[in-house]
Amino acid sequence: MNSLSNWTVSAQQHVEYRVEIVDGVFDRDNLALVDGEAGARRLIVTDAVIDDLYGDRIRAWAEANLSEHRLLVLPHGETNKSWDSVDTVLETIDSFKLDRRREPVIAVGGGVLTDIVGFACSIYRRNTPFIRVPTTLIGLVDASVGVKTGVNFRAGKNKIGTYFAASRSLLDTSFLASLNDRHVSNGLAEILKIALIKDSVLFELLAGHGAAALASRFQAQTSQERAIIGHAIAGMLEELEPNLWEHKLERLVDYGHTFSPTIEMRALPELLHGEAVCLDMALTTAISLNRGHMMTSQARRIFAVMKSLGLPTEHPAMELGALANALEDTTRHRGGLQRLPLPYGIGSATFANDVTTSEIAEALETIKALSPENAKVAA
Amino acid sequence: MNSLSNWTVSAQQHVEYRVEIVDGVFDRDNLALVDGEAGARRLIVTDAVIDDLYGDRIRAWAEANLSEHRLLVLPHGETNKSWDSVDTVLETIDSFKLDRRREPVIAVGGGVLTDIVGFACSIYRRNTPFIRVPTTLIGLVDASVGVKTGVNFRAGKNKIGTYFAASRSLLDTSFLASLNDRHVSNGLAEILKIALIKDSVLFELLAGHGAAALASRFQAQTSQERAIIGHAIAGMLEELEPNLWEHKLERLVDYGHTFSPTIEMRALPELLHGEAVCLDMALTTAISLNRGHMMTSQARRIFAVMKSLGLPTEHPAMELGALANALEDTTRHRGGLQRLPLPYGIGSATFANDVTTSEIAEALETIKALSPENAKVAA
Repeated sequence: MNSLSNWTVSAQQHVEYRVEIVDGVFDRDNLALVDGEAGARRLIVTDAVIDDLYGDRIRAWAEANLSEHRLLVLPHGETNKSWDSVDTVLETIDSFKLDRRREPVIAVGGGVLTDIVGFACSIYRRNTPFIRVPTTLIGLVDASVGVKTGVNFRAGKNKIGTYFAASRSLLDTSFLASLNDRHVSNGLAEILKIALIKDSVLFELLAGHGAAALASRFQAQTSQERAIIGHAIAGMLEELEPNLWEHKLERLVDYGHTFSPTIEMRALPELLHGEAVCLDMALTTAISLNRGHMMTSQARRIFAVMKSLGLPTEHPAMELGALANALEDTTRHRGGLQRLPLPYGIGSATFANDVTTSEIAEALETIKALSPENAKVAA
Repeated sequence: MNSLSNWTVSAQQHVEYRVEIVDGVFDRDNLALVDGEAGARRLIVTDAVIDDLYGDRIRAWAEANLSEHRLLVLPHGETNKSWDSVDTVLETIDSFKLDRRREPVIAVGGGVLTDIVGFACSIYRRNTPFIRVPTTLIGLVDASVGVKTGVNFRAGKNKIGTYFAASRSLLDTSFLASLNDRHVSNGLAEILKIALIKDSVLFELLAGHGAAALASRFQAQTSQERAIIGHAIAGMLEELEPNLWEHKLERLVDYGHTFSPTIEMRALPELLHGEAVCLDMALTTAISLNRGHMMTSQARRIFAVMKSLGLPTEHPAMELGALANALEDTTRHRGGLQRLPLPYGIGSATFANDVTTSEIAEALETIKALSPENAKVAA
């Protein structure tokens, strides 16, 4: 195969990581974060909001269980998702003289924070392991189970980054107690996404118990709350595992993420990511209905569940021209085909490559008729 | 295996890339760089020195064969191997509106330049393919055949970067015509490394034809010149392919790279990388001799070949304290063991974990006796 002038190098990289649900990860006597061994050195990175809420608790845990630690507090929020923050993390790893073979960095925060820290770790000496502790529902069921890291670059959302798995993600639902309603709904949108494309059992759980989980912020410790989170993560991982590096462009988990980047950017900072995703799902549910991919009764149930989870189905940013552009944009990034996931009934999906602008216009009308407040008029 | 509270994700990433020897890559009618298809868009990145020497030629090729192109010229040299240069490349990829699925970036330059461009490409949208065209001998036989990218961070050499293969490396030896002697010798050091640890045929080629190749800058087009480069690359790839991500810490290609980082930093900018590597190889050859891993006649031949390739075997930076620290430092980065590759005879190697400071002191004395100019005194 190889001569002395022409070579092909072919290799397999094996990647393995763990996602674990853990109670009270910063309880004084909990050693899950250090694999049961007290006395280690660790760098912990968090953001200002988490520091306000949980800083004392994290420090007390670190004092009790680590031989040495540093707590780096980054500024909070999407506007700080930039190279400067990565630089700060790199600088701190360096000055802490972290031994990357024994001292994984610990990232505690929402998706923005864990994306920044993951990116920094992935490039420091080309590979410095890190552990993720998500503190938001969307972080818990979405950002923390995958392998994407990154920050914004110029105007581009997550335009630079790496595929780099946290060696472990420790999911502690007690952090959700401090979230406001909208941020719980924000995570529920990604859970609903998994339900719609592949898990009718999860959909029934959301229909029956989603509103209660929202009200309790997942603190009621019921089997249904645990099942909602467990099904969402299991479903997400099932989709990610065979396609971690996104070589395959038809991805079910892209459901809700075709029109939403544009909607989100148009409505920033008004809409949260999950809210924009739900608007996208409302639109594509309507497209599916109009294509005969589901029954009207199913579409109505979906809209009712969205409503019960505190999620929007209509928004002024859903403007036909912008949506048509969004589809074109996404098509470019999906290798020239729409590869648009559409729900097929409830709990399964299909891909379309031929959605037209007039179909989008029609779907926008359908959304109005499906919204629970308009249900009587339309019925 | 997976419950609803505990998951293990396991996946394999397949990586494949090509390394090809090509003549006259920027000859007007050569389409190797664009896979035989004229009319494409391409971003080409090079540095100021290459632009001075070959800029006109590159532009003429681009005008003739591309529908659209941009030539980005970065400042030359190690001091520009920083995030700022990466940022410039990212910015240019972005403003060029590069379609990463069809328009691989072309990097033309030495190891510094291709490391910068490779890093930028690896993180732009988490994966933007690039093609490497090395212009130095060390780039050709070393930097361009592996998968490491990166830049310096604060005081740390190559401290941030990624493992990211160029989809193709096109090796055109005609660039070597513009190198000065020292830079040819610089590359010959890495070739000698491969010879010493695993290829006695390559060693005989260097012993018989290395000095001539140095004199002609590999422009004589002899079968021996081609064989020297071919054997060096084949040997390097054979070692890299099963260990692309450096999970295995015992690496034969680390030969000559235990003491050399310290020697190089102490003597900057006086010593080139390959010169420091050769000093390391002189020291470890002496250690091997003293351990009985080779005959005195073999060690003498090695030193004579080093000399004939224009490479140093002694230098004031080779000071016992610094060398002992270097070994400690490397041991830390190799997971607590020295894992020091030592030549065993000529063309094979062994690993040691128990080299002592007094052995290094003794080896420094042995080096003096082995140096060709001292050979008569020592004999």
